[in-house]
Amino acid sequence: MFEDRANKRTELSELGEFGLINHLTKDVFINHPETIRGIGDDAAVIEPSGKQMLVTCDLLVEGVHFDLTYTPLKHLGYKAAVVNISDIAAMNGIPKQLVIGIAVSNRFSVEAIDEIYAGIMLACERYKVDLVGGDTTSSRSGLFISVTAIGEAEPDKVVYRNTAKENNLVCVTGDLGGAYAGLLLLEREKKTYEANPEMQPELEGYDYALERQLKPEARMDVVLKLREAGIVPTAMIDISDGLASEILHICNDSKMGAVIYEEKIPIDAVVAGIAEEFHIEPVVAALNGGEDYELLFTVDINDFEKISAIPGISIIGHITEEATGVNMMSNSGSLITIRAQGWDHYRNTEE
Amino acid sequence: MFEDRANKRTELSELGEFGLINHLTKDVFINHPETIRGIGDDAAVIEPSGKQMLVTCDLLVEGVHFDLTYTPLKHLGYKAAVVNISDIAAMNGIPKQLVIGIAVSNRFSVEAIDEIYAGIMLACERYKVDLVGGDTTSSRSGLFISVTAIGEAEPDKVVYRNTAKENNLVCVTGDLGGAYAGLLLLEREKKTYEANPEMQPELEGYDYALERQLKPEARMDVVLKLREAGIVPTAMIDISDGLASEILHICNDSKMGAVIYEEKIPIDAVVAGIAEEFHIEPVVAALNGGEDYELLFTVDINDFEKISAIPGISIIGHITEEATGVNMMSNSGSLITIRAQGWDHYRNTEE
Repeated sequence: MFEDRANKRTELSELGEFGLINHLTKDVFINHPETIRGIGDDAAVIEPSGKQMLVTCDLLVEGVHFDLTYTPLKHLGYKAAVVNISDIAAMNGIPKQLVIGIAVSNRFSVEAIDEIYAGIMLACERYKVDLVGGDTTSSRSGLFISVTAIGEAEPDKVVYRNTAKENNLVCVTGDLGGAYAGLLLLEREKKTYEANPEMQPELEGYDYALERQLKPEARMDVVLKLREAGIVPTAMIDISDGLASEILHICNDSKMGAVIYEEKIPIDAVVAGIAEEFHIEPVVAALNGGEDYELLFTVDINDFEKISAIPGISIIGHITEEATGVNMMSNSGSLITIRAQGWDHYRNTEE
Repeated sequence: MFEDRANKRTELSELGEFGLINHLTKDVFINHPETIRGIGDDAAVIEPSGKQMLVTCDLLVEGVHFDLTYTPLKHLGYKAAVVNISDIAAMNGIPKQLVIGIAVSNRFSVEAIDEIYAGIMLACERYKVDLVGGDTTSSRSGLFISVTAIGEAEPDKVVYRNTAKENNLVCVTGDLGGAYAGLLLLEREKKTYEANPEMQPELEGYDYALERQLKPEARMDVVLKLREAGIVPTAMIDISDGLASEILHICNDSKMGAVIYEEKIPIDAVVAGIAEEFHIEPVVAALNGGEDYELLFTVDINDFEKISAIPGISIIGHITEEATGVNMMSNSGSLITIRAQGWDHYRNTEE
């Protein structure tokens, strides 16, 4: 998992900007008839099909969002695409197109950028998304990836984060804290490796958490299952900054409160084990660890039976009036006020 | 022009990521009814109005695309928006929405980012574009801006770059080489200042070229005039890398040749004067200097009278069959093959 750099090294200057764009985009395949024109003109052209369009953008910055000492470039490309597709999923939409901007220093070879693109293309294939444009340029130092994802949904299917109602059920997909547990492991291995490069990484049995960190998935499968079941969530957000931060977004934006139950928060046994190894309460990893890219959503209480019938969705609490605040009922029976303790990149940077 | 940094300095860490987003976007105004939801959810929501949608993205990287020693931050924000609006103009479209991603190191204050945003908002106002989303994050060093512009056009009005036909007239808007002349001046002043910081910049009388470099405009006025005149260009591109590079794009993509006439290439007298001061042929600045953001387009020869009646458009040549290549008839009467010598950022970077 730690070594996927190709051995051949072609300097970026050998291809130049246009040469590089041609090289990277020669195999791009278009899935959707709505994509009238992809890469190769001043702008991509999209024929909307009478639905509303969803547009989202994320920047991924080396040293802030990823560490190349343990992130394979192909995984990085895949993750860059997926985190944006996850934002489309969080609007209850179907992702359709991606626009990618990459800025790299000449520390990177053409083969390195090929790896990033291979990951992006893999995500495009997996999620049936068309890569329709972008920009490839140089940076003075480091790697920057900007991804814009475009999706669509019928107007009555778009789900915002500010529309949760009192007594709605609070639901979460999959399990939480895994990506953070994976990050803890990778950071520990990095330190061990820096101290003694002869040391082999001790990552056996940890695959699940590592994959959660390095190769997350967007829960489009859940979006489709909800449609099949005839459920339109009342509010939805994806969990990029931890459950605490996201439930606060939904409640604050909806002017509501909530109670969630610690015992209902889904945590994988491997993840709980890793958290304990690092002397962290597993629930803290779920609440404050980021990057799980699961969906947090609310549904009308009348959808209880339908939602219970879908595997992989946990009902973890309910929406209350605003005045009661946002709280967690702990396993010991005490009510704990939830505060956001997600990532705050600005506290970590230095020039 | 060289000093617009606010005196107050608020650290980014005082606001945090969400605080900064709220601070930056609190005054954002929505112009278009098609913009159903702007900033503040997982994705923006756009209601297409039965037209085709155009999507384009550019990255602007500190030290590669701009130099903050002489680029005021407000101008930078304006230019970042305008260069993307120019790509929508080059498709013969109307710009509607912008999505902005900014990564900054903690070298920058909140007030500095406010300046960038002020420039972006000025462009949004000037071009009637809605800022609908984005991402603000930190970088380990330097400033990166990613802009995605969304526009629209009726399907029969969208103009590509690969559809020029034999005998079409080759037209260009405004005048060329000005942005490059401005860059030459600014780089010279930078060197002078570095050698002797007491020295006052000698930029009087050069305003036109400086403004072309620091505050370019997208030629939406021309797009609208062409519509009024009932002209749909056969092919179009914006001049971001110099006339030579762009005419080659149109010809190569259209599988055509072209002849352009040196004497017809529009060059402002101020720009010609600066070029001569730097011992550069003015036509070389027009052919190979970048960032003018004028439009290069081709029209059917039957549109000759209509196009001649629009002020500010120069007919500089015509499209030929592919076999004759892409050439310029010089003032001395010799035919010169045009080669791309636009910017190639990869040759200048270092880690």
